[in-house]
Amino acid sequence: MEESENIQFQLTDVLIEQVELFIEQENDKELKALLDEFHYADIAEILDELNLEQAVYVIKLLDSDTTSDILTELDEDNREKVLKSLSAKEIAEEIEELDTDDAADIIAELPEARQQAVIAQIEDEEHKEEIKELLTYDENTAGSLMAKELVKVYETWTVAGCMRRIRGQAEEVTRVHSIYVVNKEEKLIGRLSLKDLIVAKNERKISELVKVNVDSVNVEENVEEVAKIMAKYDLEAIPVVDENKTLLGRITIDDIVDVLKEEAEKDYQMAAGITGDVDSDDTILELTRARLPWLFLGLVGGIGAFLIMEGFEGLFTGKAVILFFFTPLIAAMAGNVGVQSSAIIVQGLANDDVRGSVNSRLIKEMLLAALNGVILALFLFLFVWAFKGELNTALAISVSLVAVIIVAGLIGTFVPLFLNKRGIDPAIATGPFITTSNDILGILLYFWIAKMILGI
Amino acid sequence: MEESENIQFQLTDVLIEQVELFIEQENDKELKALLDEFHYADIAEILDELNLEQAVYVIKLLDSDTTSDILTELDEDNREKVLKSLSAKEIAEEIEELDTDDAADIIAELPEARQQAVIAQIEDEEHKEEIKELLTYDENTAGSLMAKELVKVYETWTVAGCMRRIRGQAEEVTRVHSIYVVNKEEKLIGRLSLKDLIVAKNERKISELVKVNVDSVNVEENVEEVAKIMAKYDLEAIPVVDENKTLLGRITIDDIVDVLKEEAEKDYQMAAGITGDVDSDDTILELTRARLPWLFLGLVGGIGAFLIMEGFEGLFTGKAVILFFFTPLIAAMAGNVGVQSSAIIVQGLANDDVRGSVNSRLIKEMLLAALNGVILALFLFLFVWAFKGELNTALAISVSLVAVIIVAGLIGTFVPLFLNKRGIDPAIATGPFITTSNDILGILLYFWIAKMILGI
Repeated sequence: MEESENIQFQLTDVLIEQVELFIEQENDKELKALLDEFHYADIAEILDELNLEQAVYVIKLLDSDTTSDILTELDEDNREKVLKSLSAKEIAEEIEELDTDDAADIIAELPEARQQAVIAQIEDEEHKEEIKELLTYDENTAGSLMAKELVKVYETWTVAGCMRRIRGQAEEVTRVHSIYVVNKEEKLIGRLSLKDLIVAKNERKISELVKVNVDSVNVEENVEEVAKIMAKYDLEAIPVVDENKTLLGRITIDDIVDVLKEEAEKDYQMAAGITGDVDSDDTILELTRARLPWLFLGLVGGIGAFLIMEGFEGLFTGKAVILFFFTPLIAAMAGNVGVQSSAIIVQGLANDDVRGSVNSRLIKEMLLAALNGVILALFLFLFVWAFKGELNTALAISVSLVAVIIVAGLIGTFVPLFLNKRGIDPAIATGPFITTSNDILGILLYFWIAKMILGI
Repeated sequence: MEESENIQFQLTDVLIEQVELFIEQENDKELKALLDEFHYADIAEILDELNLEQAVYVIKLLDSDTTSDILTELDEDNREKVLKSLSAKEIAEEIEELDTDDAADIIAELPEARQQAVIAQIEDEEHKEEIKELLTYDENTAGSLMAKELVKVYETWTVAGCMRRIRGQAEEVTRVHSIYVVNKEEKLIGRLSLKDLIVAKNERKISELVKVNVDSVNVEENVEEVAKIMAKYDLEAIPVVDENKTLLGRITIDDIVDVLKEEAEKDYQMAAGITGDVDSDDTILELTRARLPWLFLGLVGGIGAFLIMEGFEGLFTGKAVILFFFTPLIAAMAGNVGVQSSAIIVQGLANDDVRGSVNSRLIKEMLLAALNGVILALFLFLFVWAFKGELNTALAISVSLVAVIIVAGLIGTFVPLFLNKRGIDPAIATGPFITTSNDILGILLYFWIAKMILGI
C-alpha cells in the first residue's frame, strides 16, 4: 500500500470506453496518465472488462512494479490468459516485484513446464530460493499461504542495535506487524511489536522485552484452521514454524480475509447446488459443469418419487385422489425442514460450537420439528377440512405431515454430523443432496401413513 | 494482544468439570491459576459452557483487564445475562479497560436506562466523552465500528519530535497500523507507517514523508461498503472522517473480519430459510421463530400446488394419471434451477461483478437453462419411454420439463436483480421464496403444456 489511493473509483462504461479508445489510438501517454490515477486493484477491474489483446497492451505499457500487483488482482481466468501471452522472461520480471507469497501463487498457476522456465529467469537468487521453497508446500496448508518476508531479530540484541538492523530488513517488508524474535538456532522465541520497540529505552535487551509463548502455526496446518485461529484471537499476522519451531515465514490477515470470503462463497454455492468456483461471468459450459450434476441428482430423486407414487397408484380412485395433489406440498416441506436443520448444523460445525452428544442434538431437533410440524399440520388440517369437508382425509394428511417434518429434521441434523465425523465437508449436505433424499423419503412416508390412517 | 498466548487450547469436558469443581469449592487460588494460562477468548468459550451463576463467579474473580476482554468475546445471549448480574459500577469498571469501540458496543446492548447509569460511572472523562460520541452513530455505519484510539501527528512536526510524541499516544493504542497526519484544522492529510518513520532521518519534516490522498471512509458509510473497500485494497486499518474530512476515528481489519463472517452467515441462513441470527445452541422457541415463517410460506405454496392439481383433476384419467406422479420431479427441478441461478446472481451482486444489462443476463440464463434442460429432458424422455412405452406421454413430460427449467432459471435470475434494484437485500431470493414460487409456477406450466401436447 505504498501508492496513493483513491476510494472514489467507479467502474463505468465511459471509463472503459476511454481506455479502449486510448489503446486503439496507441495513445500511450494519455493512457498511462489516466491509469496512474488508479489503485492497482482498480486497474485490475478495468482490465477484467477488456479483451485479452487490450489487457496485454496495458500490462506491457505500465511499470512492472504496478503490473505485478495488477496481475495478483485479476480474475483467475483472465490472469491465466494474460500470462500465456507473456514470455517467461516477462513473467519473471513481474515476479521479482512481488512478495514471495504472491509470487509463488502466480507461478503455481502456470503449467509445470513453464514454472521451471520462469523460475530460471528470476535474477534475485534469494527471492528465487524462497519462491522455490514456497512451491513445495501443499495447497490449503499454512505453507501455501505464508510469505518469507518478515522482520526477525535475535534475542541477544539490544533495542538500539535492533532498530539499526530492522531499518535494513523493514525496507523490503511491505507491512511490519510484529518483529519475530529467534534464538541462535533460528527457533521462534516470541515477538515484539514495533510500538514496544519505540517505547523502550535504547540500552534494553530484546530478551527482556520479548513476549514469549506467542501463537504460531505449523507449516502443514490447514488454512481454514489458521483462519479460525487468527479470527478468534484477533491476530493480524501469525508466524509459521516447522515441527522444530524454526521460523519459516508469516501469514498476514489480508490473506485470511480472502480465505474466509472464498470459504463463505463455496459453502453458499454448495448449499445452492453449485460445485466448483464459478461466478456469473463464467461461460455457459463452465456454469453447466457446475450445475448439471446437482440437477441430475434432483432428476433421479424425482424419478424415485415417481416410482413410489406409481406403487400407490391403486389409491388413485375416488376420494383418495386428493392425496396425490398434496405430494408437492409434502416434498416441499420435507426439503425445507431438512435444509434448515442441516444449515444450522453445518454452520455450528464451522464455528466449532456444536458440542455435546449427537443424541442430544437429535432429540432437540425432534422436539423443534415436532413443534413446527404440529403448528403447520393444524393449519393444513383446518384448510383441508374446511375445503373438502372430509375429516378423515384431513387428519390423514396432517398426521403424515407431522411425521414427515420430524423425519426430515432428523435427517437434516444427522447427515451433516455423520459426514463431518467421516471427514467429509458437511456443507455438501445442505442443498440438493438433502432436499432430494428428503423428498423421496417424505413422499414414501406420507403415502404409507395416510394409507394406514384411511384404512385403504 | 499483550498476553501470552497458547494455541493448543482445547475446550474439553474434563476442563469444564475442573472449572466447575473449583467454583463449587470456592477454590479461588487454583481457579485463577488455571484460567490465567488461557487467552481471554478461550476463557470466554469456557464461560459460555457454564451456568450464569458460575460465569458471574469467574468474572468477579478475575482482574478487570482480563474480564473486560472476556465480556467482548462471550456469546451475545450470555453477555446480556452476565451484565444483568453486574452493577452499573461494575460494568463501568470493565468499560474503563476497553477500547472505545468495544466499550460502546457493550453499552449499546444494555437497556436504555442502564446505559445512562453505566456511563455516569465511567471515571475517565475523555473515555466517557468518546464513548458517548460513538453511541450516537447508527448501527451498520462506519461510525458504529470505529474506535477513537489512534495515533495522530501534525504535518508540521519533524520525525524526531514525532517519535517523542508518538511514544505517549502509542501506549494507549493496542495496535499501531498507521500514523495519521492532520493539519492544524484536524483535517486528515494522509498517513505514515511506523516503518517509514523508523527508516527516515530524524530531522525530516512529516510533511515531506506523508502519503497524501489515502483511503478514508465517511462516518455514515455502510459497514458492508467499508468491508468491501478494506478487502479490495488489502487495508489493515482505515481512517474515518466526517464530511469536512475531520479525522474522527479508525476502523481495523479485525472488526471487518467479524463483519464478513456475520454477513456470510446471514446470507447462508437466509438461503436455507432461516431468519435472524440464530445458532444451534439457541432455544427451541428462538429457532422456531427463525424457521417457522419460511416453512409456512412453503405450506402456502404447497396448498397452491394442490389447488392447481385439483383444477386439472377431471382431465386426467387412465394413462394420463402418470402425469400426476411426475409433479414432485417437476417441482424439485424448478426449485433447484431457481436456487442455482439466484445464488449466482446474489453472489455476483455481493461482489459487485454483475455488470451489463438485465437483458443480457436473462438471455445467458435462458441459454444455460435450455442446455441443462434439454440434457435432463432427454434422459427423462428415454426413461419414461423405456419404462412405460408411451411415446406421447414421454414427449409431453420432457418438453414440459425443458420449459419449466427455462422459466425457473429466468425467475431465479430476474427476482434478485429486481429486488436489488428496489434496494431490498437480494439474498432473500435464494431459498424458500424462490423455491416456493417456482414450485407453483412449474407445476402450472407443466400441466398446461402436457395437456396441450397430449390434446386432452
